Amino acid sequence: MSSKKKSKKSTRSAEPTAAFDAPLADLLRPEPGSSLADVDTRATPGWDAGRSAAEARTLELGETLSELQERLFAEGRSGGTRSVLLVLQGLDTSGKGGIVRHVLGMVDPQGVTIRSFGVPTEKERSHSFLWRIRRALPSAGRIGVFDRSHYEDVLVARVDALADPETIERRYRDIVRFEKKLAAAGTTIVKVALVISPAEQYERLSKRLARPDKHWKFAVSDLDTRAKWPRYTEAYDIAIERTSTETAPWHVVPADRKWFARLAVTQLLVDALTGLDLAWPEATFDVEAAIEALDATQDDPLALTPAEIEERAEQIERTES
Amino acid sequence: MSSKKKSKKSTRSAEPTAAFDAPLADLLRPEPGSSLADVDTRATPGWDAGRSAAEARTLELGETLSELQERLFAEGRSGGTRSVLLVLQGLDTSGKGGIVRHVLGMVDPQGVTIRSFGVPTEKERSHSFLWRIRRALPSAGRIGVFDRSHYEDVLVARVDALADPETIERRYRDIVRFEKKLAAAGTTIVKVALVISPAEQYERLSKRLARPDKHWKFAVSDLDTRAKWPRYTEAYDIAIERTSTETAPWHVVPADRKWFARLAVTQLLVDALTGLDLAWPEATFDVEAAIEALDATQDDPLALTPAEIEERAEQIERTES
Repeated sequence: MSSKKKSKKSTRSAEPTAAFDAPLADLLRPEPGSSLADVDTRATPGWDAGRSAAEARTLELGETLSELQERLFAEGRSGGTRSVLLVLQGLDTSGKGGIVRHVLGMVDPQGVTIRSFGVPTEKERSHSFLWRIRRALPSAGRIGVFDRSHYEDVLVARVDALADPETIERRYRDIVRFEKKLAAAGTTIVKVALVISPAEQYERLSKRLARPDKHWKFAVSDLDTRAKWPRYTEAYDIAIERTSTETAPWHVVPADRKWFARLAVTQLLVDALTGLDLAWPEATFDVEAAIEALDATQDDPLALTPAEIEERAEQIERTES
Repeated sequence: MSSKKKSKKSTRSAEPTAAFDAPLADLLRPEPGSSLADVDTRATPGWDAGRSAAEARTLELGETLSELQERLFAEGRSGGTRSVLLVLQGLDTSGKGGIVRHVLGMVDPQGVTIRSFGVPTEKERSHSFLWRIRRALPSAGRIGVFDRSHYEDVLVARVDALADPETIERRYRDIVRFEKKLAAAGTTIVKVALVISPAEQYERLSKRLARPDKHWKFAVSDLDTRAKWPRYTEAYDIAIERTSTETAPWHVVPADRKWFARLAVTQLLVDALTGLDLAWPEATFDVEAAIEALDATQDDPLALTPAEIEERAEQIERTES
């Protein structure tokens, strides 16, 4: 696999690729007191090389992401407990699904678990709002993706008054505490709010309605949500203000240009995984002894009896690496 | 997304691509009484166009698979109950993981659920062998992948006598009955046995041991399994003979050439999904009325009040499509 990856890469990097020259997280950090209403949704913070360079860079970062993911997975298989959780929030058509497809689609599907959260079921409603979230967390070594998340419980819940104000207030604190514990247990949390303009949403919904093969993606409730635009903006502003912490900061991603949003999320994931300083796990067995035993069976898999293999296995397996 | 797919495709199909000219399933069907020991593991049944044509064809079929998967997903979101389950079996290094990565990696990760089955946990052992399998089945609209499966309970269980012979005998029947019910409930089952030669396994294990970044993939038990090669072959032969049914047939895929195994599994999945005759779900709402309501909010998302939207929603939502 790796040799194949390299050959792909070298073909592609015949011409140098543009790259962000500062940590992207800094450019996407919400200012205290700022509003999503003020975001230039067509902006491309930190990127002035245009669309095709962005697409090339996304693929290039995809190779890096893919290797980092494999290291994380290997660590998880070798007793490590770390994981990464990407939380994707944004109004209808903001591009959450496209990010899952095009960004997470660049890495080995074995290493990624995707969960989307819709209207809670009756069973889910009978538990605390974090119940279904806890059951969906990525296991060790995995990149988890939440397409919508526990934030719906302070977004739609607030806009549509699905819970009383005191409950919503308590939830911000519950979320902060929950994410803090999660981070302490080894999960790096990357929270992304995708922000589009009403005009862009109009275009995207129109396209869905114009194409019979996209009708299944349309829900009449999308129109209702659209009609509450400023109330959603306010709910997002409050949620971001109350839950942007050092361990789990929000990133506000202008998303009218899908290519920028995809590039940005790829970069944020690469940065998160790079921050884990992932090394390949060291062998917990005696590699030389294993090679020797394997070589003895090169021409005939039965050259060593199961009893002889068992004897060798004791030498090969080491308690201390 | 679709327009992008099309443009990729047209660039690629500048030169015609080779293709299988008969149903691949026919070429991979195990003969009654045959043994995996007789499989030419370097063969490429139905394919004489070589490696690079196979890789090109795999990518081309990947586009088809990707679209079919989206239709299946759309159907599942629209009340459909059908799904597809790919069961991957094969000895260590036979390429199961590579198929997940390279074949399933071509489709939207949202539509795929991957489960791998290792040594059962204590809790799993306290239940019937199908318990953990039932909990891992793909939901409606999904392609599920089992990297190892319930077949381990008649393979390693038989070779290592982890269950008494009567229990193993009963399991073949349980599996046939289970798969029959699963198929009747709407799951198309694609069972693949990847077959490599002992010499090829030697090469692949050697490579793992030679590369520190692959050491985590090596388990000392791989040597033990290798030393029981003919017993595994026998266990596979019996399992395939007893559980190859019309609703859930086995496909025996020669896998010394990874590119062939990947092409073959891609083709088998495309054939399975094509067999479902998937149409895009029809809109269950009045499309014209939805467009009209949306257009009223083109310049201002608040042009209609939530109350007005609600009123319109009643016209838009139809009980009968």
